[in-house]
Amino acid sequence: MKTNRRHFISSAVAGTLGAAALPGTTYGSGLPGSGSLPLDLKSRYASLDEAVQRPVFRKELFSSPVILETLELLRDRENFMVRVRSKDGAEGIAVGHTGLNPKGGGGQSVRNWPVSKLLFDQFQGKDARELDSLIPGDNGKGGGIPFNIALATLEFAILDMMGNTIKKPVGELIGKIHNPMVTVYQGSRMPELLSLPPEQSLEIVKKDLEETKAKAIKMRVGLPGALDKDSKAGNEKLIRMARKTFGDQMVLGCDGNNKFSVEGGIRMGKVLEDYNYVWWEEMVPFGWYDELKMVKNGLKIPIFTGESEAHISTFRWLIANDACDVVQPDQLYFGGMIRSMKVARMAEIFGKTIVPHITQYGLGYIYMLHFISACPNAGKYQEFDTFSTRDANGNQIPIVYKSGDPMVSYDGVLKVPTGSGLGIVIDPDYIKKHKVVNDW
Amino acid sequence: MKTNRRHFISSAVAGTLGAAALPGTTYGSGLPGSGSLPLDLKSRYASLDEAVQRPVFRKELFSSPVILETLELLRDRENFMVRVRSKDGAEGIAVGHTGLNPKGGGGQSVRNWPVSKLLFDQFQGKDARELDSLIPGDNGKGGGIPFNIALATLEFAILDMMGNTIKKPVGELIGKIHNPMVTVYQGSRMPELLSLPPEQSLEIVKKDLEETKAKAIKMRVGLPGALDKDSKAGNEKLIRMARKTFGDQMVLGCDGNNKFSVEGGIRMGKVLEDYNYVWWEEMVPFGWYDELKMVKNGLKIPIFTGESEAHISTFRWLIANDACDVVQPDQLYFGGMIRSMKVARMAEIFGKTIVPHITQYGLGYIYMLHFISACPNAGKYQEFDTFSTRDANGNQIPIVYKSGDPMVSYDGVLKVPTGSGLGIVIDPDYIKKHKVVNDW
Repeated sequence: MKTNRRHFISSAVAGTLGAAALPGTTYGSGLPGSGSLPLDLKSRYASLDEAVQRPVFRKELFSSPVILETLELLRDRENFMVRVRSKDGAEGIAVGHTGLNPKGGGGQSVRNWPVSKLLFDQFQGKDARELDSLIPGDNGKGGGIPFNIALATLEFAILDMMGNTIKKPVGELIGKIHNPMVTVYQGSRMPELLSLPPEQSLEIVKKDLEETKAKAIKMRVGLPGALDKDSKAGNEKLIRMARKTFGDQMVLGCDGNNKFSVEGGIRMGKVLEDYNYVWWEEMVPFGWYDELKMVKNGLKIPIFTGESEAHISTFRWLIANDACDVVQPDQLYFGGMIRSMKVARMAEIFGKTIVPHITQYGLGYIYMLHFISACPNAGKYQEFDTFSTRDANGNQIPIVYKSGDPMVSYDGVLKVPTGSGLGIVIDPDYIKKHKVVNDW
Repeated sequence: MKTNRRHFISSAVAGTLGAAALPGTTYGSGLPGSGSLPLDLKSRYASLDEAVQRPVFRKELFSSPVILETLELLRDRENFMVRVRSKDGAEGIAVGHTGLNPKGGGGQSVRNWPVSKLLFDQFQGKDARELDSLIPGDNGKGGGIPFNIALATLEFAILDMMGNTIKKPVGELIGKIHNPMVTVYQGSRMPELLSLPPEQSLEIVKKDLEETKAKAIKMRVGLPGALDKDSKAGNEKLIRMARKTFGDQMVLGCDGNNKFSVEGGIRMGKVLEDYNYVWWEEMVPFGWYDELKMVKNGLKIPIFTGESEAHISTFRWLIANDACDVVQPDQLYFGGMIRSMKVARMAEIFGKTIVPHITQYGLGYIYMLHFISACPNAGKYQEFDTFSTRDANGNQIPIVYKSGDPMVSYDGVLKVPTGSGLGIVIDPDYIKKHKVVNDW
């Protein structure tokens, strides 16, 4: 299996301005070479801005107003949910940011929750059909990830409510269903992969694969601490061993955890190319956009980025400057599906694809499935770790699909929940453990 | 008075790599022309990264550890303060973000305050001499302005405590005192200047000038609403009238409130040049960095930006790419003085100056004075609006300078408070109205 950018192009629509990539078939940029996007920089920006302006929420599906009557923040210690009700009694609910700590803690909602008050005041009494205009664009001073997390949680609850109102899944509210099934890669656990010897790391990955049976895996390199200029320290061994362990048919990608300089990123990228890895993700430090482009220009392997971004303007720059092949806004960090869809559309114009970063645990994978279902330019493999819905207190959120489908991965393929709204029921007893926040 | 970039250079040290600009004498880039910084892009970044790594906090002034024993968040409705005490009993206190609303409200601390819990847990028991390593660098996922505001408030309180410990003002803890006196420009009220007819706007500015007697004024253009592509709608009239009203000796600058396209920004910039304005600030939308550079390349007037930025990496890009002449991190939005000083140092390397954005009201101008006192490359005129210390509830914060100096502007020149720490005493009765937050 050849892994250069050209390979991905051959399996995709030849990307030209305005032509969509085939759904779910490509990771790479639709255009050959680097820095060779058509049009001059200003014209590229003009086409991106046009894409951002187009409406996302399909208000035409609703024949009458859906007034947001009740907006509530629910709390159980470090775990937060938003619940909304329309004047006509439709309800929606979503869980906030949950964090990685198995014993609970580490979720961000616990430090951002008063933002919900500001948002509730702005949304209260409004017609939820106007969601596009209620969701803010970039806001330098008032925005950023802590703000976006509260915004996203509210948006998910509203989309759930709107879906329940007309008995449609969330994906249909933000686009057409391009991907009723979503193929995933096995995400990998950060601390284990970065600190254990390669042999032990790979044993853990093998166990994770038993749940998903995915046909693609993400490895991780880049040791904790300072910038890893040499890209050494056992990383290369892990890359080689993973290829040997999982065989030539396994699709492999790699995350650099923001630990590489330009030189290190290119050197490690060439190792990845040698071992037929098919993507190289987030290798330079956060905010090093010029350097990301330098790494891309030095390699053929597709470049992924965007998990830590808060602003549409950043993806606008990355795409206009051809600094990456695949964009990765996180549904929660980026402020929800409507904002993320604007990023997907910008990417689509230049033949790029989207593979959102997923906030592990909680309902992260549910949000991802609905969003990706409506993306025409979704990358072939989407991030997925586990069906565990651990909340910010370390407890499992008891959910079932409304459709009655089992929560399983069929050889790495997940069915997007087809029930109304988010397509899930959260156990009412679990919700009842949460108290409505009244004291802001 | 000629106002092109060359004029500013002639009054400054000829900027070369590593040579500091003369204190307080220049706005413009120390280098002639645009896009002509020395070295290639990678080498420019290397020199910027070296500047960011250098220590800021002068721990050598302290002979023994100063342990952070008590960290408290104080709250009175929408107003927040952070109070810290060392094991040896030194105390420091700072006020959070206050907002513009005369009746209270609009401050951001009220929606970000639980971030303080996270920070307190990280700082508790630590030696405050290690402030440089306690203050985080850029953190994509965990950072952003809402986080930075809580961080800055804590940092100001710690700097106050450390200054009180060794009886030195805050400026001496983060550098040498380059500017014991700070010359300011008269900031202008946004809503009034953007919505009233020019004649009425200028009457308001004249009244504001009675307090400061400043020799420089910032005007504002860019109407509320969408991008003002034509740069018309009365703006030009205000620019002309202000020059006529205040005369040829008045130094005038202009803020574009992020409302101009590249074409509009250049067109309005040429009007400003025609009327001898000496800076053109924040004219393109937030995050439009390529466009900012295009505007700069089309004009001679110095370009200011940065008030809405949260990350060091953004200034790093702006400076490396020569996209502005003057950097404007806001002490609160940017996460405090240590982070802002790193920006000042990056700017200094390429002969650029710093004019921080100031969060109006509260203690914003006190923080600005101390920070600027320690900046070798401060711009000639710094932002200042009023001595009003209105808090987030709309009440004045009763403060006096420890030095006994009056709070006045002498023809637009303010003396940096010389007492220990922040150099002020906040009325204890005012502080007592606040309760310690125990319920996070």
